[in-house]
Amino acid sequence: MIVVGELINASRKPIAAAIEARDAAAIARVAREQREAGADYIDVNAGTFVGQEAELLRWLVSTVQEAVDAPCCIDSPDPRAIEAALEVHRGTAMINSISWERSRFDALAPLLAGTDLKVVALCMGDDGMPETADQRLGIADRLVDGLLRNNVSAENIYVDPLVQPISTRSEFGAEFLRAVGEIMGRFDGVHTICGLSNVSYGLPERKLLNQTFAVMAVARGLDAVIVNPLDTRLMAQLVAAEALAGRDPFCMNYLKAYRAGRLGA
Amino acid sequence: MIVVGELINASRKPIAAAIEARDAAAIARVAREQREAGADYIDVNAGTFVGQEAELLRWLVSTVQEAVDAPCCIDSPDPRAIEAALEVHRGTAMINSISWERSRFDALAPLLAGTDLKVVALCMGDDGMPETADQRLGIADRLVDGLLRNNVSAENIYVDPLVQPISTRSEFGAEFLRAVGEIMGRFDGVHTICGLSNVSYGLPERKLLNQTFAVMAVARGLDAVIVNPLDTRLMAQLVAAEALAGRDPFCMNYLKAYRAGRLGA
Repeated sequence: MIVVGELINASRKPIAAAIEARDAAAIARVAREQREAGADYIDVNAGTFVGQEAELLRWLVSTVQEAVDAPCCIDSPDPRAIEAALEVHRGTAMINSISWERSRFDALAPLLAGTDLKVVALCMGDDGMPETADQRLGIADRLVDGLLRNNVSAENIYVDPLVQPISTRSEFGAEFLRAVGEIMGRFDGVHTICGLSNVSYGLPERKLLNQTFAVMAVARGLDAVIVNPLDTRLMAQLVAAEALAGRDPFCMNYLKAYRAGRLGA
Repeated sequence: MIVVGELINASRKPIAAAIEARDAAAIARVAREQREAGADYIDVNAGTFVGQEAELLRWLVSTVQEAVDAPCCIDSPDPRAIEAALEVHRGTAMINSISWERSRFDALAPLLAGTDLKVVALCMGDDGMPETADQRLGIADRLVDGLLRNNVSAENIYVDPLVQPISTRSEFGAEFLRAVGEIMGRFDGVHTICGLSNVSYGLPERKLLNQTFAVMAVARGLDAVIVNPLDTRLMAQLVAAEALAGRDPFCMNYLKAYRAGRLGA
């Protein structure tokens, strides 16, 4: 399971304040906490700082990678901001995200072509958010094909079928889960990824819903997540789900997490 | 989701003691606790009392149904014990269980034929426990067909694909989950059910594994469980999983559980 830690995002007030003040110690602390909690990638997002995104993403990448030995997930739709951040990035970054919106695809595909960069590929086209599993599959078909033709290898593609709130329509969770299963069955080597929190929008006990949905998605084949890794219960359930899904030979990772005290949340 | 409360089982020491002493108050208390926690059926098992099973199952059914307004799940392989218990049972019982073992099937099928009884149908034949999804499906095919030909309606069949410990083989969880999905897709109207605790046998933090596996099975279509309903976290996750699977229109049941304080465990 690939875990992307989502906390260094300018839409969160303490992070916006830390970026504003160029408080490297605060950013480094959040990076370290996430890394220690099991994040494989540290997401960095400065999207609310209009006009300064490129400069700030560079600063975030440098600050994070001085604190932790992990790659970043560079979270921006702007190819210039991404390129600026990549100039200072060490190792192989993940780009969050491309989509099947024509202008976004055309702007980002050349930047990915022939590289080892990982990329989150949102199941969204110019017609807006998909609602059904079939709509997601239709976009995924074109998006994966487009990326492969642009010389992005299947193993570096992380399709995000896009979670929508079940409070809006009761079927949105089931349609998402069906899409995960179909995508994992259809495209050899391609991964699936998602953020969780949208699913519980407008409902109480959101953590319970997010944790439960993460496990359900793993049961359908999801192999990467963008989450708050400091949610210890969520992380414990992801470790358990991997073992139960047969993706943890001899339960070695589960037993290691147990011995490290990570399962008792 | 159909929830069968598993606690009134003679293999548990306090229950064996209560049965031994004919302590109706103790049995009634465990029945009430499970019912209040959300059990739809109260399992009754006196299997360790060899030679007295029929008499004791009758007593358990009467005692439980004096305490709670719910049907029992009569847990025995012995048709005579089941018949004795059914004589005093009010409402429509569930029988736990028939299997594809020739002698067991032949003994129990006549008792079910043409009735409204629900029945747990174990995916086990004379060759022993199945290991793969395909073995489970092979047995399920014959078992469901045999029950239908014996005039048991599809809606009353609860196929149990049989959980085996992932500590024995890492693939056992995945094979079980695949079987659930295939069975739900293959037989119109037929349900799937399982007990959970075998999956975690031999591993630490068993509750975490059982809770997580229940959610994964719901994600693959499972619509009934045999569990400890006093595990509040498990029950909260089952309610959440149903809403996330699109089986709770307008999240009504989820919101009701929230208002009743059942989700905060």
